[in-house]
Amino acid sequence: MIDRRALYSLDKRQRVALVNSLPGFKPVVLVGTVNADSLTNLCVINSCFHVGADPALIGMIIRPAPQGTERHTLENILATKMYSFNAVTRAMAQRAHHTSARFSRDRSEFDACGFTKQWHEDFVAPFVSESPLQLGLKLAEHLLLTVNDTHLIIGSIEHIHVCDQSQRDDGTLDLQSMDIVAGVGLDSYHAVTKGQRFTYAKPDKPPELI
Amino acid sequence: MIDRRALYSLDKRQRVALVNSLPGFKPVVLVGTVNADSLTNLCVINSCFHVGADPALIGMIIRPAPQGTERHTLENILATKMYSFNAVTRAMAQRAHHTSARFSRDRSEFDACGFTKQWHEDFVAPFVSESPLQLGLKLAEHLLLTVNDTHLIIGSIEHIHVCDQSQRDDGTLDLQSMDIVAGVGLDSYHAVTKGQRFTYAKPDKPPELI
Repeated sequence: MIDRRALYSLDKRQRVALVNSLPGFKPVVLVGTVNADSLTNLCVINSCFHVGADPALIGMIIRPAPQGTERHTLENILATKMYSFNAVTRAMAQRAHHTSARFSRDRSEFDACGFTKQWHEDFVAPFVSESPLQLGLKLAEHLLLTVNDTHLIIGSIEHIHVCDQSQRDDGTLDLQSMDIVAGVGLDSYHAVTKGQRFTYAKPDKPPELI
Repeated sequence: MIDRRALYSLDKRQRVALVNSLPGFKPVVLVGTVNADSLTNLCVINSCFHVGADPALIGMIIRPAPQGTERHTLENILATKMYSFNAVTRAMAQRAHHTSARFSRDRSEFDACGFTKQWHEDFVAPFVSESPLQLGLKLAEHLLLTVNDTHLIIGSIEHIHVCDQSQRDDGTLDLQSMDIVAGVGLDSYHAVTKGQRFTYAKPDKPPELI
């Protein structure tokens, strides 16, 4: 058992690595933005989560910017109100990880990391052409979490770009068929197996396999 | 392309299924709580996410409770301030899914779904004995998101229960070796493959495999 005392006695890097592993498997998403000077930015995040379906909302966490650091993605979202989420496949994982490096403001991670910008009609933010699942999002809520000065950004889903073959008749997406990866911590990317689906759960009997 | 109009024209069940698939692979966690009458509760969530490592914080989303519905987990967390997160393995997936059924308040999902309660010293909330990764959490922040009346619950990590073999020297956890699953949408559970880890990213060269 690791209690508070043991956790906060760890070397800082070990604590960061451990705590980032604790939520389990996480989504891996490339966030595409642009600034007022038309400079594009791309950054990998693994803190994105479902907020609601009606209206359709997705959230993410962006770390605070202590004095002297820059948060290009946050600044661009607050300036333009628009951003894209692009799911990451196995073939994209190494390049996606590279976007977490500290590139200077005038250097686009699209070019530096080897991704192709894609533009969709009526949308100011760039998408990642290599991604099989792209979302166009509009800023819907921005909160500063008092507990650690982290930014919570919630976006409404305006566009969904996904190939028809990956969508099942019931509305669900077959993410495994798109070779999308699951993340762990800050540095680990995993393909998934086919998996199991279960029927809507009712109290009186165990759910069945679909 | 699915735009806003197409999204909101979908049958409600299809829209819920689609939107829940959009974030990508998600953590699957059983939340253990207890109420003032010592009745235990267990509920599966897939909206948990990393908030920060220092202090160590994890967040989750709990849906609003329209008139007439009950949110046992939320009520218990607000009453006792303590709750547990328990990672879900492949062997636990069907039973974990079953906890999403609407059980009455006086029926514990531990018993109804076939999980074993485990108690750790100095902690009021129950843990899931079958889970290889258990976290004891203390309520740190509770926000109502105005965008859709959803509850954001952030907890500080007080205890971590995990076997030593699954923790690497650098602090990271090997979740794949524990057979923990990744979720999609509301009904899909996937084992993951071994995966790839990359070195800390720097601008001047692509990250390398660890």
